[in-house]
Amino acid sequence: MGMNDARLSLDEIHSLVLDCLRRHGCDEENAGAVASVITDAERDGCHSHGLMRLAGYVAALDSGKVKGDARPLIGKKAPAIIHVDGNGGFAPLALTESRPHIIEAAKMNGIAAAGLVNVYHFSALWWEIETLAEAGLCAFACTSYIPVVLPAGGKQALYGTNPIAFGWPRNNEPPVVFDQASSVMARGEVMLAAREGKKLADGVGVDMDGNPSNDPNEVLRGAMLAFGGYKGSLIAMMVELLAGPLIGETLSFETAAKDNSDGGPTCGGELILAMDPNLIGTPDLWADHGEKLFKKILAQNEVRLPGDRRYNNRPMATKDGVLVSSKILDEIKSL
Amino acid sequence: MGMNDARLSLDEIHSLVLDCLRRHGCDEENAGAVASVITDAERDGCHSHGLMRLAGYVAALDSGKVKGDARPLIGKKAPAIIHVDGNGGFAPLALTESRPHIIEAAKMNGIAAAGLVNVYHFSALWWEIETLAEAGLCAFACTSYIPVVLPAGGKQALYGTNPIAFGWPRNNEPPVVFDQASSVMARGEVMLAAREGKKLADGVGVDMDGNPSNDPNEVLRGAMLAFGGYKGSLIAMMVELLAGPLIGETLSFETAAKDNSDGGPTCGGELILAMDPNLIGTPDLWADHGEKLFKKILAQNEVRLPGDRRYNNRPMATKDGVLVSSKILDEIKSL
Repeated sequence: MGMNDARLSLDEIHSLVLDCLRRHGCDEENAGAVASVITDAERDGCHSHGLMRLAGYVAALDSGKVKGDARPLIGKKAPAIIHVDGNGGFAPLALTESRPHIIEAAKMNGIAAAGLVNVYHFSALWWEIETLAEAGLCAFACTSYIPVVLPAGGKQALYGTNPIAFGWPRNNEPPVVFDQASSVMARGEVMLAAREGKKLADGVGVDMDGNPSNDPNEVLRGAMLAFGGYKGSLIAMMVELLAGPLIGETLSFETAAKDNSDGGPTCGGELILAMDPNLIGTPDLWADHGEKLFKKILAQNEVRLPGDRRYNNRPMATKDGVLVSSKILDEIKSL
Repeated sequence: MGMNDARLSLDEIHSLVLDCLRRHGCDEENAGAVASVITDAERDGCHSHGLMRLAGYVAALDSGKVKGDARPLIGKKAPAIIHVDGNGGFAPLALTESRPHIIEAAKMNGIAAAGLVNVYHFSALWWEIETLAEAGLCAFACTSYIPVVLPAGGKQALYGTNPIAFGWPRNNEPPVVFDQASSVMARGEVMLAAREGKKLADGVGVDMDGNPSNDPNEVLRGAMLAFGGYKGSLIAMMVELLAGPLIGETLSFETAAKDNSDGGPTCGGELILAMDPNLIGTPDLWADHGEKLFKKILAQNEVRLPGDRRYNNRPMATKDGVLVSSKILDEIKSL
């Protein structure tokens, strides 16, 4: 703990973000939605998607790339298809406002898909997945980015980090949620290694010529590998199609071509699927059935359920607040 | 080429399988559907899902486990949900008969899900994915099996090989389709290594005590690892939930507990998703948009599109037939 680090309550974090974004041109609704995403990340110990991101949100407002007063336009393109045009705003408000429509369409039809277009997504996918799963739905989401990952066998970055996230609802427990990049390592971890002068393990990335490298700076200029070789690479390809052409948004290489490189989020698409187990499987029995799997998983030592680390972090963060480094606090003050 | 190997036309392969299954109690419709799956696998050079599997289909008929005259029951549980009860038969007839219903529901609602339960699946998922993608739909499917894969960090097999498959429709080209197990290696490849006395690479599997092993026989008694570490393991977990509790079917460990180990397929579930890009994204433009990604992929040397190996195999196999080993032919004669 540094001398000038400070412990902030979740309310203080929320207010800090809200005030900062309002000063840079966000309206109340957009600032509030982004503040919730950042506060929830700090609450869950996901600092890489917490206050660290505020500078990027502000950069995108200051450069005029993102509209701080954007209003998402939400419509139905078919009985089970929700179309969400973010209208050039940050993703959180589009996610918050489309959520009841996605839930309603899934509970009406058994399954629903939402295509979010023209949004600037800068947070983790578990956030939207968890709320859908809390509503009793099995949920899936994915989004692309800019080219930083090689197609297996290739030499040049083509795919984004392209995370996929999945959530499973439970009775009397928070949902099981995972959210994972299609790259071996998150880009933030490579940047951290570069800052700390650490070498990367074999198989994480390549330099600009496509040759394997353990130097994080070379890999940041070059490309990362997909997890699990060609299998992870095919998942990254699937995400390109689902969050791009399927919903009418850009592929990662197209996203990069139109971005102004202000350090903030890039404009792109997200696909969300929501399924109602009561309408697909056996009503009321599916939840207990899922527990049988989780019991088997937890019976093996050292195996946790995805999401548990975040959930375990919550009670203390809610009660005692979160320790924020002086570096982050200084950065926010300077914004 | 062995002395007694023979080149059979695709029609001859179809007839051979049809006759064999009929002699073992399959009716015309079920035998025909399985014969098509096996013939298509041989046509595409996927011999591991071709005639090699016939002995397993026959074993399951002979043991009385699978009903050769099963009629799938197909119904709608919600506007976008097709429920397919295979009624204890092989999967191919249930897939063939439910296909028009899945396509219709997807084209009506924009997205549809089908839960297949009480079916014996013994083939590759690309078969059903390709036909849905040929109908202009973006498709996804997954199925579980019996416990042969470790949860990451664990010591005991809990997950099936749990393949996922994905298809993307194209204009004037066969669809892009991938179909991949959640394990590092397919089980058939480990069995092949055992037969040939070859060692496995590091990271493929563990012995019965959960310790890393390069001996394929030890790994067959022990467990395989998921591809890409904990990320592949979470995909395997997702498949357990989607092809099990979500649709009202068994988890892999439950499937194993009720199977009679006759060497044939096991009874379980499959989830299929079908999405209509014309109703989700931009009508007519999505296909050209997908081509932009494929062009970028193919511009990199040594990177192919998934499915190409199978498609490239087709013209010659259709014209000249397929070389079938004397070992397989003898096995079939003995059935």
